[in-house]
Amino acid sequence: MLTKLVNSLLNKKSTLEVHAHCDGPCGVYDPASTRVAAEAVLAMTKKLIALNPPSSTDSADWAAYSNTFSRFVAVKEEQAKETKKEILILWTDYFKPVHLETYPDLHETIWKAAKLCSACKVNIDLAQAEELMSYVEKIHNIFWESKGRSDAFVKS
Amino acid sequence: MLTKLVNSLLNKKSTLEVHAHCDGPCGVYDPASTRVAAEAVLAMTKKLIALNPPSSTDSADWAAYSNTFSRFVAVKEEQAKETKKEILILWTDYFKPVHLETYPDLHETIWKAAKLCSACKVNIDLAQAEELMSYVEKIHNIFWESKGRSDAFVKS
Amino acid sequence: MLTKLVNSLLNKKSTLEVHAHCDGPCGVYDPASTRVAAEAVLAMTKKLIALNPPSSTDSADWAAYSNTFSRFVAVKEEQAKETKKEILILWTDYFKPVHLETYPDLHETIWKAAKLCSACKVNIDLAQAEELMSYVEKIHNIFWESKGRSDAFVKS
Amino acid sequence: MLTKLVNSLLNKKSTLEVHAHCDGPCGVYDPASTRVAAEAVLAMTKKLIALNPPSSTDSADWAAYSNTFSRFVAVKEEQAKETKKEILILWTDYFKPVHLETYPDLHETIWKAAKLCSACKVNIDLAQAEELMSYVEKIHNIFWESKGRSDAFVKS
Amino acid sequence: MLTKLVNSLLNKKSTLEVHAHCDGPCGVYDPASTRVAAEAVLAMTKKLIALNPPSSTDSADWAAYSNTFSRFVAVKEEQAKETKKEILILWTDYFKPVHLETYPDLHETIWKAAKLCSACKVNIDLAQAEELMSYVEKIHNIFWESKGRSDAFVKS
Amino acid sequence: MLTKLVNSLLNKKSTLEVHAHCDGPCGVYDPASTRVAAEAVLAMTKKLIALNPPSSTDSADWAAYSNTFSRFVAVKEEQAKETKKEILILWTDYFKPVHLETYPDLHETIWKAAKLCSACKVNIDLAQAEELMSYVEKIHNIFWESKGRSDAFVKS
Repeated sequence: MLTKLVNSLLNKKSTLEVHAHCDGPCGVYDPASTRVAAEAVLAMTKKLIALNPPSSTDSADWAAYSNTFSRFVAVKEEQAKETKKEILILWTDYFKPVHLETYPDLHETIWKAAKLCSACKVNIDLAQAEELMSYVEKIHNIFWESKGRSDAFVKS
Repeated sequence: MLTKLVNSLLNKKSTLEVHAHCDGPCGVYDPASTRVAAEAVLAMTKKLIALNPPSSTDSADWAAYSNTFSRFVAVKEEQAKETKKEILILWTDYFKPVHLETYPDLHETIWKAAKLCSACKVNIDLAQAEELMSYVEKIHNIFWESKGRSDAFVKS
Repeated sequence: MLTKLVNSLLNKKSTLEVHAHCDGPCGVYDPASTRVAAEAVLAMTKKLIALNPPSSTDSADWAAYSNTFSRFVAVKEEQAKETKKEILILWTDYFKPVHLETYPDLHETIWKAAKLCSACKVNIDLAQAEELMSYVEKIHNIFWESKGRSDAFVKS
Repeated sequence: MLTKLVNSLLNKKSTLEVHAHCDGPCGVYDPASTRVAAEAVLAMTKKLIALNPPSSTDSADWAAYSNTFSRFVAVKEEQAKETKKEILILWTDYFKPVHLETYPDLHETIWKAAKLCSACKVNIDLAQAEELMSYVEKIHNIFWESKGRSDAFVKS
Repeated sequence: MLTKLVNSLLNKKSTLEVHAHCDGPCGVYDPASTRVAAEAVLAMTKKLIALNPPSSTDSADWAAYSNTFSRFVAVKEEQAKETKKEILILWTDYFKPVHLETYPDLHETIWKAAKLCSACKVNIDLAQAEELMSYVEKIHNIFWESKGRSDAFVKS
Repeated sequence: MLTKLVNSLLNKKSTLEVHAHCDGPCGVYDPASTRVAAEAVLAMTKKLIALNPPSSTDSADWAAYSNTFSRFVAVKEEQAKETKKEILILWTDYFKPVHLETYPDLHETIWKAAKLCSACKVNIDLAQAEELMSYVEKIHNIFWESKGRSDAFVKS
């Protein structure tokens, strides 16, 4: 029976081929999730820059400051990871070899966007968070153009 | 020092109050994530209904069918969980007591939408998946109206 | 075959209906998990209030303090999330429309408890952590009463 | 400054020692979570044994059966993992060398319980699920006895 | 104070630059984790091909077969995800622009390897699992060569 | 049919027994993952010790320091958890009763290694991180010896 199984696996893959290009079998791709996560990274970066350590030595002020600072960093971290994950899903699952002909810089664009996600974790840097946002917009535009639709990049 | 700390915690919470209504300190709420997940539930439900067991007794056909069926169920499960999670974030973190005056059915609407997420996991049921979609649209409309904006419910 | 499948899905759901009200098909609900998580939130809040920054400027003292502070905040965060998750599982999966007749304030009670979980993350606030504990006890009592059993609220 | 930091780390660990025995700094241990998860494993095993494949060849019946079977296996899997995780938290974080004097079989008991969790994932086996339950009760008894309390093993 | 903070952020990033190229601040990269995960994908694919549905109509045989099949697919899925995640960590965090000069096909190699991970989830296909393994070996060789070391590709 | 199912489950487990000793059905065990995680714990401990708070009161310096400190602690935490998880997978899934005859201290060795993982989370302590590393090497050696192979303990 094993021989038969192996043989038929070798001969009959055609019924599965329709899914072979796609990781998420649902076929629902939408850069909106990427944009929402990147907006959160930018918002947290701004909030962290605006956060001032207490000028006094009061313990409760310091505890409140540290609690808030820790949480803001954790959210920035988590949302930057999410942004990167969503960008990479589009790259590895949605985009296919045919898209590279129209967008020869696709790999490089994705790579830089992913590296910006990491940079936004490492630093508290407004310029990098805004550059990430502009890369997310660029990927949004490539995505919708590749589907023959246009879609405004509306932020929440 | 402890006494001082407790006292100052009791007396000085005002600096933190701006965040007290909000779980996600980023302040970025957007029902787009809910909609993307619900679309995936609907897509997987349709794909599962369209999936036919092999008419032959060929082992490799059955292995391919079972692999695909298992994966489709798992994605439906995961995306229904995600839809529920996103709906509940809006409910517990974005909506505040003042919204209940304008939307007295808010609790009930959210509860039914959450229960539909569970139903879409338990069953493979086109009618329930579409009802979930219409609840997600209803929540989308309440959300944007509550912000004084309107936003078309565009599916990807 | 598709037509047949759709027809039978429409006509034959009765065999699945027994599960339709329930997200976790195991049928094992127990507010003990909620209580354990809420106890941890309360414990961490107390430990954070008791934690004093070093009075000296010694670097190792500061490193030890910051390591402990970061970890305590992270556990408080995680356990508050867990408490919220468990409360919402009871609400969306265990409680059914019939319970609303006996407990008309159920939605409001759950909503406030969930919002207290968020507040315990945002602040280091003994009063809020204790109020969360009392909400968890209230839900514990509703739960066991709805099952026609009583169960003492014993803390570990 | 580095030299000073290293020196003080080497000389001053005493302020941290109170936590050194404990992974979860909250200090809240309770075998109730273990018991709830093990009950779910037992419940799912029973439900899987009671689940009959359709006697007809009707496609929708098979889809419903497969959806339910997949979900039940996934819950059994997840809850067996959770049971194992909770048992190992007690072992690595709560129990300390002094407990080994009173309970010389502790390591062996924990090991067998953990291996039963794995067995309950691999098989659909009522005897193994019930043996796991009895091991969880044994650990529950050791735990409460070690704290000088007794606590009935009440199932939900 | 905000102005001062922004100014100093703009002027003083040099102290952070050493980390700016790196997502995982630990600096420990090792393709061994990728290899272990890919080996598991290959092993599960072989086990799934070798798994025969019962020839009888015995219910318990079918339950055992389905339990094992479901678990094998789930492990294949999880390990393929892990392989992809590890490959992408190397690409987005370890590799830097300078590596592209020596390895101009790096983007394309990573992209194909990531797409093979997805294909191994979608199908039960020995040839694809083995091709993934050879891509993982190729990435292993590029990685160690880029560090000026050589390391045999030993499988466990 | 239920009776038949139960009977056949009781009588026919032999077809499943080959998996009964194993949690991860892939059969791929490799202490390399444990070693990579432990190396990261050691690296982060060293980086945390080397990290100095700013000597000035400049806000941006403090923000940069706190962001980096928080992230380093989080990575140390996560990798110590991962090290523990991997050690416990080997213990509960790979090692079998027969190994206890050759390695009578196995339980104790694993227990101490797991407790060291916890200690490395609680403290920033070079000696403990290095002791964990030596325990991981000891487990590496037991593992490969038990398979009748030897394998150098090469760090990345």
